[in-house]
Amino acid sequence: MGIVLNGGTVVTAADVYQADVRIEGERIAALGFEIEQPGDQVINVDGCFIVPGGIDPHTHFDLPAGDITTSDDFYSGTRAALLGGTTTIIDYATQFKGESLKTGLENWHKKADGKCFVDYGFHMAITDWNDSVAQEMTTMVHQEGVPSFKLYMAYKNVLQVDDAALLQALRRAGECEALVCVHCENGDVVYDLVQKARQVGKIAPKYHPLTRPPEAEAEAASRVIALAQMADAPVYIVHLTCSGALQAVIDAKLQGREVYAETCPQYLLLDESYYDSEGFNGAKYVISPPLRPIQNQAALWTGLQTGILETMATDHCAFNYKGQKELGLEDFSKIPNGAPGVETRMGLLYTYGVQTGKLNLNEFVALTSTNAAKLFGLFPRKGTIAPGSDADLVVWDPRSSSEISVDRLHQQVDYTPFEGFRQQGKAIKVFLRGKLVCQDGELIQELPAGKYLFRNPFLRRKDGKHV
Amino acid sequence: MGIVLNGGTVVTAADVYQADVRIEGERIAALGFEIEQPGDQVINVDGCFIVPGGIDPHTHFDLPAGDITTSDDFYSGTRAALLGGTTTIIDYATQFKGESLKTGLENWHKKADGKCFVDYGFHMAITDWNDSVAQEMTTMVHQEGVPSFKLYMAYKNVLQVDDAALLQALRRAGECEALVCVHCENGDVVYDLVQKARQVGKIAPKYHPLTRPPEAEAEAASRVIALAQMADAPVYIVHLTCSGALQAVIDAKLQGREVYAETCPQYLLLDESYYDSEGFNGAKYVISPPLRPIQNQAALWTGLQTGILETMATDHCAFNYKGQKELGLEDFSKIPNGAPGVETRMGLLYTYGVQTGKLNLNEFVALTSTNAAKLFGLFPRKGTIAPGSDADLVVWDPRSSSEISVDRLHQQVDYTPFEGFRQQGKAIKVFLRGKLVCQDGELIQELPAGKYLFRNPFLRRKDGKHV
Amino acid sequence: MGIVLNGGTVVTAADVYQADVRIEGERIAALGFEIEQPGDQVINVDGCFIVPGGIDPHTHFDLPAGDITTSDDFYSGTRAALLGGTTTIIDYATQFKGESLKTGLENWHKKADGKCFVDYGFHMAITDWNDSVAQEMTTMVHQEGVPSFKLYMAYKNVLQVDDAALLQALRRAGECEALVCVHCENGDVVYDLVQKARQVGKIAPKYHPLTRPPEAEAEAASRVIALAQMADAPVYIVHLTCSGALQAVIDAKLQGREVYAETCPQYLLLDESYYDSEGFNGAKYVISPPLRPIQNQAALWTGLQTGILETMATDHCAFNYKGQKELGLEDFSKIPNGAPGVETRMGLLYTYGVQTGKLNLNEFVALTSTNAAKLFGLFPRKGTIAPGSDADLVVWDPRSSSEISVDRLHQQVDYTPFEGFRQQGKAIKVFLRGKLVCQDGELIQELPAGKYLFRNPFLRRKDGKHV
Amino acid sequence: MGIVLNGGTVVTAADVYQADVRIEGERIAALGFEIEQPGDQVINVDGCFIVPGGIDPHTHFDLPAGDITTSDDFYSGTRAALLGGTTTIIDYATQFKGESLKTGLENWHKKADGKCFVDYGFHMAITDWNDSVAQEMTTMVHQEGVPSFKLYMAYKNVLQVDDAALLQALRRAGECEALVCVHCENGDVVYDLVQKARQVGKIAPKYHPLTRPPEAEAEAASRVIALAQMADAPVYIVHLTCSGALQAVIDAKLQGREVYAETCPQYLLLDESYYDSEGFNGAKYVISPPLRPIQNQAALWTGLQTGILETMATDHCAFNYKGQKELGLEDFSKIPNGAPGVETRMGLLYTYGVQTGKLNLNEFVALTSTNAAKLFGLFPRKGTIAPGSDADLVVWDPRSSSEISVDRLHQQVDYTPFEGFRQQGKAIKVFLRGKLVCQDGELIQELPAGKYLFRNPFLRRKDGKHV
Ligand SMILES: [Zn+2]
Ligand SMILES: [Zn+2]
Ligand SMILES: [Zn+2]
Ligand SMILES: [Zn+2]
Ligand SMILES: [Zn+2]
Ligand SMILES: [Zn+2]
Ligand SMILES: [Zn+2]
Ligand SMILES: [Zn+2]
Repeated sequence: MGIVLNGGTVVTAADVYQADVRIEGERIAALGFEIEQPGDQVINVDGCFIVPGGIDPHTHFDLPAGDITTSDDFYSGTRAALLGGTTTIIDYATQFKGESLKTGLENWHKKADGKCFVDYGFHMAITDWNDSVAQEMTTMVHQEGVPSFKLYMAYKNVLQVDDAALLQALRRAGECEALVCVHCENGDVVYDLVQKARQVGKIAPKYHPLTRPPEAEAEAASRVIALAQMADAPVYIVHLTCSGALQAVIDAKLQGREVYAETCPQYLLLDESYYDSEGFNGAKYVISPPLRPIQNQAALWTGLQTGILETMATDHCAFNYKGQKELGLEDFSKIPNGAPGVETRMGLLYTYGVQTGKLNLNEFVALTSTNAAKLFGLFPRKGTIAPGSDADLVVWDPRSSSEISVDRLHQQVDYTPFEGFRQQGKAIKVFLRGKLVCQDGELIQELPAGKYLFRNPFLRRKDGKHV
Repeated sequence: MGIVLNGGTVVTAADVYQADVRIEGERIAALGFEIEQPGDQVINVDGCFIVPGGIDPHTHFDLPAGDITTSDDFYSGTRAALLGGTTTIIDYATQFKGESLKTGLENWHKKADGKCFVDYGFHMAITDWNDSVAQEMTTMVHQEGVPSFKLYMAYKNVLQVDDAALLQALRRAGECEALVCVHCENGDVVYDLVQKARQVGKIAPKYHPLTRPPEAEAEAASRVIALAQMADAPVYIVHLTCSGALQAVIDAKLQGREVYAETCPQYLLLDESYYDSEGFNGAKYVISPPLRPIQNQAALWTGLQTGILETMATDHCAFNYKGQKELGLEDFSKIPNGAPGVETRMGLLYTYGVQTGKLNLNEFVALTSTNAAKLFGLFPRKGTIAPGSDADLVVWDPRSSSEISVDRLHQQVDYTPFEGFRQQGKAIKVFLRGKLVCQDGELIQELPAGKYLFRNPFLRRKDGKHV
Repeated sequence: MGIVLNGGTVVTAADVYQADVRIEGERIAALGFEIEQPGDQVINVDGCFIVPGGIDPHTHFDLPAGDITTSDDFYSGTRAALLGGTTTIIDYATQFKGESLKTGLENWHKKADGKCFVDYGFHMAITDWNDSVAQEMTTMVHQEGVPSFKLYMAYKNVLQVDDAALLQALRRAGECEALVCVHCENGDVVYDLVQKARQVGKIAPKYHPLTRPPEAEAEAASRVIALAQMADAPVYIVHLTCSGALQAVIDAKLQGREVYAETCPQYLLLDESYYDSEGFNGAKYVISPPLRPIQNQAALWTGLQTGILETMATDHCAFNYKGQKELGLEDFSKIPNGAPGVETRMGLLYTYGVQTGKLNLNEFVALTSTNAAKLFGLFPRKGTIAPGSDADLVVWDPRSSSEISVDRLHQQVDYTPFEGFRQQGKAIKVFLRGKLVCQDGELIQELPAGKYLFRNPFLRRKDGKHV
Repeated sequence: MGIVLNGGTVVTAADVYQADVRIEGERIAALGFEIEQPGDQVINVDGCFIVPGGIDPHTHFDLPAGDITTSDDFYSGTRAALLGGTTTIIDYATQFKGESLKTGLENWHKKADGKCFVDYGFHMAITDWNDSVAQEMTTMVHQEGVPSFKLYMAYKNVLQVDDAALLQALRRAGECEALVCVHCENGDVVYDLVQKARQVGKIAPKYHPLTRPPEAEAEAASRVIALAQMADAPVYIVHLTCSGALQAVIDAKLQGREVYAETCPQYLLLDESYYDSEGFNGAKYVISPPLRPIQNQAALWTGLQTGILETMATDHCAFNYKGQKELGLEDFSKIPNGAPGVETRMGLLYTYGVQTGKLNLNEFVALTSTNAAKLFGLFPRKGTIAPGSDADLVVWDPRSSSEISVDRLHQQVDYTPFEGFRQQGKAIKVFLRGKLVCQDGELIQELPAGKYLFRNPFLRRKDGKHV
């Protein structure tokens, strides 16, 4: 007995067609006409798009930040994700100083285990590079299902690694079929500018972007691309925000290099002027890299259109305004960095991408799920609508129209940076591995059903195996 | 009663998965598991890829060239196409001086009618621009199913139009939902260089490329892109061959402009040195633009990998070496320009693209069919494997290995430029609109079954309708 | 007996130093200390710069334009030049349709003979290309002292030549040691846009720039650079106005090609908004290429700073507002194109270049005289302050401050586009070949003393003779 | 009583003219005709060029390197410089770890005092950045005549500074009218690659370039340019060797930024293949950055022609092959880095630049003296031939032809990397501050007469004071 979705328009990264979708068990069984089997439940989705469940490849749930922890843990965060149409997240597990990768990964498994409403994987963030960690990378890839790692070029004295570590990690990743994700900002520059700002009493949120200029991101992006080339390794740039960094990616791609990049809705839709919000409200937008001068937005949209940018993530990292963001009332550098977004990602990209004509439906799907699945070892299990793939399906009703407001969102945080934004379309049904888990904006059952995703190694183009 | 292809791996521009494909009538009915219906014929295709039938968007069949005509007409040409795995061609119908577009199109319908083994459409080449022609364009798009036009920047005194005509045709196309295809070479330069070469007795085939330098192509490509921008129109550059022209396309795309480009296998696999072939054999490679210095090949491959180049056409324009190419024995400028390729396109791209790891299977499909279908108003009817699409299917056996030789090809011409090239994989079954028309390299029936394709208008990205 | 200028600061394209300058006869005899000879006249120029007399390489005096003629002829025009600190002009003699170059040149000699207050040379503008003209080019270079030619890519049906003519003229110039100057705008585009504008009643001056977009200039610049490369010839782009064309020059120079470019004060200091001047006043700025959006100015300044742009000309082509510009009251396309500037060039570049810190004094000299002298066969006779060079000297008093106004200018035209602009510094003494001809803004004698300059051939870098 | 050079051709960065040069005392008194004074000594230099004495802005004399010291000290090194036509050198004084700048500078004064045959200045290399050093910078600029500093991005654990130090030093330099010179190679990368090479037994000289790839230089150049922008400071890149780094400089200059760069004859004339020299001879070319693949040479020549590269230095750092280079017989990383060149610089650039037509005489002078004088606070005292300037003059006889050989050179080192290179032209007379110190390749007197040069602060373009 299966389920047949009838009357919808199926959208993949390449196709748009009207057909029935038949689910059997956890998988998609068939697409087409006259595919119903005796006993099947038929669900009509007239007028709706059926798209692959979203994949958000960049979240931070239950992340400690100094003395506090993000307001969203895996329970609340993945619940919000699901309601927004995202059925897979990849969170950044972190090896802190002195830990092994194994320990770091175990810690994150503990945080997530049994609490996730969506399927989830982990990238492994490395903050303490040494030979032993280099050895562990293979184990992570081949025995733990973690074929992606992250290194930070920023957060001096905390997360930042030097170029030697970056080079070696990239080389190691190239050897063990992994992909290195990099936070690109020159941490030395940021550190220096922050100190300088504080010394002269520039402590309001509006000084945050001035201490993290786009040039510091562009420089770091260029540098890690050069390091990747010298290490003969692919590289993935997280949360790219500005035209300077985009240019570095363009140059690399046009030389045939395997450089990939991600951006986030906040960089497409918000800009530097938000830091001038009344009172301390600018703190809500204190994220890193920061919001940019508005002209960068057009460059990013073109990056999406041309395929220079592969993925749309959120970097969801939620801190309450009250009590958390407020820690920086007297010093912007004490404001915990991050903002929520896992729930609003699909709706914003549909509204401001597809509805405006900037993106077509195929690009919408590619950006919200397919490309992430391909880059992070989940394809074709996730990220498409094809026989045999997990039946992670979103029934998207393009006729729905609403306004984004923290009151109507399920993220466990007291604000949304997109307050008042219009949303066209809505995930009116969400299936996770064949089961209807969400309907009309409500969870069907309150028990988390998400599973850990053991991901496949990263296959490079030159191997002739890249599919 | 339908047909079920069982055991194969379905490949689209986005997906690769194992599943059955069910055909009913002319269309694909279903994809998946347990989709067989009572009475269906099941065909096992174990170990094979099932890809969309190829679309060659650039052919010249039955084309007059001075006193002679191409050796391939629509009968022989489309038969060869089919045997090579191509189920749709778009040929260049031509309005000659003094004719209306209507007359030009009628002439081509007469040439093709009843003779085609594959489905076919026409682009309309305009060689005599005037107000009446401008008016006719709308009719062509909306009443004749011809939403693409071609203009030549080369062939002075014959096909070449001036910038005013180009600008106006582009603008008109932008207004009537059409796409202008352009042959980019500076015809004034070519004409001058040819005269100069002949005056000093440089009459051998090896002087052909010297009279059509890459700079003349790059210049023309840059120019038409500028004209398209000023006309607010999209543009499609046919048979792009060199890094200079590619750079012009890159620059335009990175500015968000709707510029598209095509290349051909000969420019990826052959190079300028072929003009030094013994005796008069260089004449076989006398095509325009000519084969280029070998370093351009890497640039073109990167262009394919990055999506800068959308389509893989052939510019099939066959002339026999004996009797036809030989007309230029005493003067290379009298050698009829063109070479065959419609039959070898799929095999060459699979072998030298996919097998080498330069392209993945999705890119192979996108380049050989999907992108052309999308650009030229045939999608999703053609160019993909989806429920509801025409069942134009190629069963590609990747285990087959052969060597390309004129003796084994079906093109009606006495040579192939790819003589001796290895081919990995083969179209062992070809379905045209649901009917098996080709098996193991042989036609199933000798009657042409191809139909004229009334194509849809070109939809621009900014319309918000581009799917 | 000579003249010694004492107490000034000598400025050349490389040097700035305090020293005496001794003139004997028409030449500079010595520079330094204790160089006075018995009988010398000593003129004190304390606190002033002594710079080479300006060279304006682009003027149009006594030029017919349809039924009218420029308001400045060689008498009034060169008188104004001299008073502004310019001691050499190179005017564009024109071969009209059906004429030989010889005839064209003779006509211009007649216009200028005995009327010039400054030394003068001629470029030869070719509007009717044929084999006979090609032959004449050598004669012009070697027997008439005219080593530079001009072709127009704009002014369709009037001055415009096609690419074949351009290519051949460039090649010929490369062979006979000449430099081709080119007016870069795509004339087909301009013609088409003008017709379109007029058809819909867009007849005000403000439509002028819209019919000559920057893209039309950038395209033409790119094209002629490509043609020059294919012709193996150097090329000089006159009146470059926009960042697109500048980029084409940059690309060429960075490939080691001999591409040179000129700009004019109006493109650095005025912008497109001037076309919105009250009433019909926009007509005063109807020049071709037109004034551009203001962001192009920064690009041009950087072009001057980096040496991408070699020369500062004026394209002086004066038409009275009353009676002449007014011919286009009902149709902007009938407004005679051109504006005056020969008198204000030095002052504007000093004020808005040197005084603002954008340019240093050496660059000021290089741009206003030295580079033009080197490119156009006048160096070291003109364009520098060195022993043996013509004593064309301007004593520039940087302390003078004034406001530009048509009332105070000597150009024979009823307006200046720079009305109200501040001018810092002034040519308080001007020497032409050793004779003080201008003092405190007044001519010393009313008799024109300028001579025709038989210029030297253009020497290419690769000849190893370029000095 | 003075000296008059009669019959020569004076060359400056802008001019070439025949005239007498009169010297009085240490200065140039006059240029021109009839400038001889009673009692003057007249020296005939018929057929020769008179050029400004060369300025080599990058030498290392008497430099400790581990347990050894460069074979050339200030005595032998400046003697060789003088004989080669260089009358000024700027050496890199170094602050070692734990030292103050004051101490570092004093140490270098001691090394040089009384030993120099040419005038000399010091850059101050900073290897230990801290607040106290930051304070000292102003003192250096304004009280010690040292307006230029150097930082190393390479030589990890020895000379390398991190990005924070670089940024702060750049900012500080911007504030105190100084110019920061930077050795651009990513030291982390180099260190890692060296370790890797040694671990696998790659110990021959030919592995040296593989551990210092061009990408590591290009990356560092890009990075320091970004840092300079963020610090709002000018920057000078020493010994630029490759097209990647050149591109970074180009991009910056085209954005109007004050980025300057130097290259050296070895990078123009030698290439990576020299590391394959027989036996251990490759060690002679072990310099950092290393010699590059030959295609970089063309890029560098174009850089010189377009003014992208300002200066031609030597990075003279001589170690004997015997006993010194041989320290690395068993491990290339122990080969002391550096090669001699101070004596051959002028001859090589004249021969391979001017004689080949790649450069003209003005460019030769600009590159060998004028530009360095302007950038490093010595102009117009040094770097030109103008009244009032120091009479540092080289009488260059272009008719001389010789072959470079260690036997005929005066550098105190047992090899020259240019052994066997042809040299056209020769410094047959050299004047230092008005005194003939060198004649026909021999010193006139054996007593060093060079003086320390207290240099002027660096003036930025935007100050409006840059001359
Ligand atoms: Zn981050
Ligand atoms: Zn993050
Ligand atoms: Zn063609
Ligand atoms: Zn064709
Ligand atoms: Zn013009
Ligand atoms: Zn003009
Ligand atoms: Zn160095
Ligand atoms: Zn050095």
